[in-house]
Amino acid sequence: MAVYTPLTNETIAAHLAEHSAVGALDFAVGIAQGVENTNYLLAVKTAAGVEEKYILTLYEKRVNPKDLPFFLNLLQHVAARGVACPKPVPRHDGTLFGVLAGKQASLISFLHGKSRSIIRNPHAASVGQALGQLHRATEGFNGARANALSLAGWQSIYQKIAGRFDEIQPGLEALVAAEMDYAAQHFMQNEALPHGIIHADLFPDNVFFEEDEVSGVIDFYFACTDALAYDVAITLNAWCFERGGEFSPTKSKLLLAGYQNQRAFTPAEIKAFPALLRGAALRFLLTRAHDWLNRDPSALVRPHDPLEYAAKLRFHQQVRDVGEYGI
Amino acid sequence: MAVYTPLTNETIAAHLAEHSAVGALDFAVGIAQGVENTNYLLAVKTAAGVEEKYILTLYEKRVNPKDLPFFLNLLQHVAARGVACPKPVPRHDGTLFGVLAGKQASLISFLHGKSRSIIRNPHAASVGQALGQLHRATEGFNGARANALSLAGWQSIYQKIAGRFDEIQPGLEALVAAEMDYAAQHFMQNEALPHGIIHADLFPDNVFFEEDEVSGVIDFYFACTDALAYDVAITLNAWCFERGGEFSPTKSKLLLAGYQNQRAFTPAEIKAFPALLRGAALRFLLTRAHDWLNRDPSALVRPHDPLEYAAKLRFHQQVRDVGEYGI
Repeated sequence: MAVYTPLTNETIAAHLAEHSAVGALDFAVGIAQGVENTNYLLAVKTAAGVEEKYILTLYEKRVNPKDLPFFLNLLQHVAARGVACPKPVPRHDGTLFGVLAGKQASLISFLHGKSRSIIRNPHAASVGQALGQLHRATEGFNGARANALSLAGWQSIYQKIAGRFDEIQPGLEALVAAEMDYAAQHFMQNEALPHGIIHADLFPDNVFFEEDEVSGVIDFYFACTDALAYDVAITLNAWCFERGGEFSPTKSKLLLAGYQNQRAFTPAEIKAFPALLRGAALRFLLTRAHDWLNRDPSALVRPHDPLEYAAKLRFHQQVRDVGEYGI
Repeated sequence: MAVYTPLTNETIAAHLAEHSAVGALDFAVGIAQGVENTNYLLAVKTAAGVEEKYILTLYEKRVNPKDLPFFLNLLQHVAARGVACPKPVPRHDGTLFGVLAGKQASLISFLHGKSRSIIRNPHAASVGQALGQLHRATEGFNGARANALSLAGWQSIYQKIAGRFDEIQPGLEALVAAEMDYAAQHFMQNEALPHGIIHADLFPDNVFFEEDEVSGVIDFYFACTDALAYDVAITLNAWCFERGGEFSPTKSKLLLAGYQNQRAFTPAEIKAFPALLRGAALRFLLTRAHDWLNRDPSALVRPHDPLEYAAKLRFHQQVRDVGEYGI
């Protein structure tokens, strides 16, 4: 949430010149939002006088340098297949990332648009459709990346904070302990479901809209190889609960219909879906609980509320039939 | 250096609609650089489809709310007189600031351009000229604001950190103590010099260039009423020393010629100039020493180096004749 590596305009302009088909730097603005990387918004003027915008990212620590080719090749692959996402700008030698100020750096096109914090029914329908399109566009992509936040990752986070959940809310310890058991029994069965490249973090922050239609998807830094229906579960959890915490059957039905408009679930996916929703809720409950228990009280960034996902988990636990999701 | 107050796109769009003559929000980006305010870069599309950019600022703590009318009226005044600086966008009722998320907020035009970190001779000439233009443009402005960082302000900062200067560099305590005495004897004499509105912080960060010409001036939040020649002294100190610390007689001569091209010094100003340069060096030495001694080791922002200004002060102390500055 900051510019960790300050760069002069001269340094940025020189770096820009190492890339194909971009113009001269007009201005550079350090961006405060985002993950723990340094991001600059660059405006460049092309030879024809047109202003174009790019994001220059320096990878500081959260992104493993070994994963960069996967992320950037993935963006290139799906952008070429019509997904509205940032496009990597190749360097003169054709590679998609270089080194700047001693750190790996990428240059991607800036995506215009606005995310929504108030989610209405048409947004849920459109985001379901966009996720289906994304899954189809990743077909044929020959990269792979293990999901560090699947069952083994959950167990590792759980070990670090077990015994401390009741500091967040009395009763949370028992909820998580029981759900870890449930996940250990049920989540591995997903290995047999259709796999592919999933976004794994399709929260409202990462989706832009024009009117009620998705106009862009950003932040692919959790993308990995996993069950496609698990991505749908993550997305449903993020978009189909109201602010007060109530599940919205209408949004759920619209999101799933939008998705299946692009890619139909298999019977095995439908059967597994309730357990996937529980797993997806547990995954964010665990990481948020970890961040909450290890938060820096002086930090400006407030950690996401783990209890939001405890409530979603409790909702899914009491669902008796997959039809309740409008599938 | 961060977004202290996160705002949703919906909140920003609603706030934008309270202003005259701006279009619909296209995107908003939180800006990492700048003083201790929250700044968003807003891109809006006008009815004609043209993209325009604005800066939305929420004043967090460094700017005294009582000073806001002074700063915004000043920008409006000098922009109307041809100074390339951010222009405040009036609200529907004609006022230049409103309230957003419980904080005072302004909307100003975004200034395209790039600052330079490598200062060459033509830049010094152009910034001198731009400062002279700015001083002329402030004539007739009917606002006033005391300089909180003039002699009384220096004495107050000095009291807080006296006895600790040698933690920064052995010998610094004696240098500052002697210079505080010198300032007490000589700086008050500047009351008789021509006064007006000064920028008071015209460092390279705050000046944009196109080619070698100044194309814009930003960050007026230190602007105040003071001796005009003191502003020239602050600016000369910021632009006319090389990276290795050596004084550049060439840049100094060019900057002063550029300034006097717009506004000639009076004989009293020329006589006072060496003492003004010492005072201007002492002012930044004191504030930087204060920030350095009170720095948060975990903060991302590295405080400016007080020793840079100790070296500038030592240079000015040994100057024997104002002609050495090329005046």
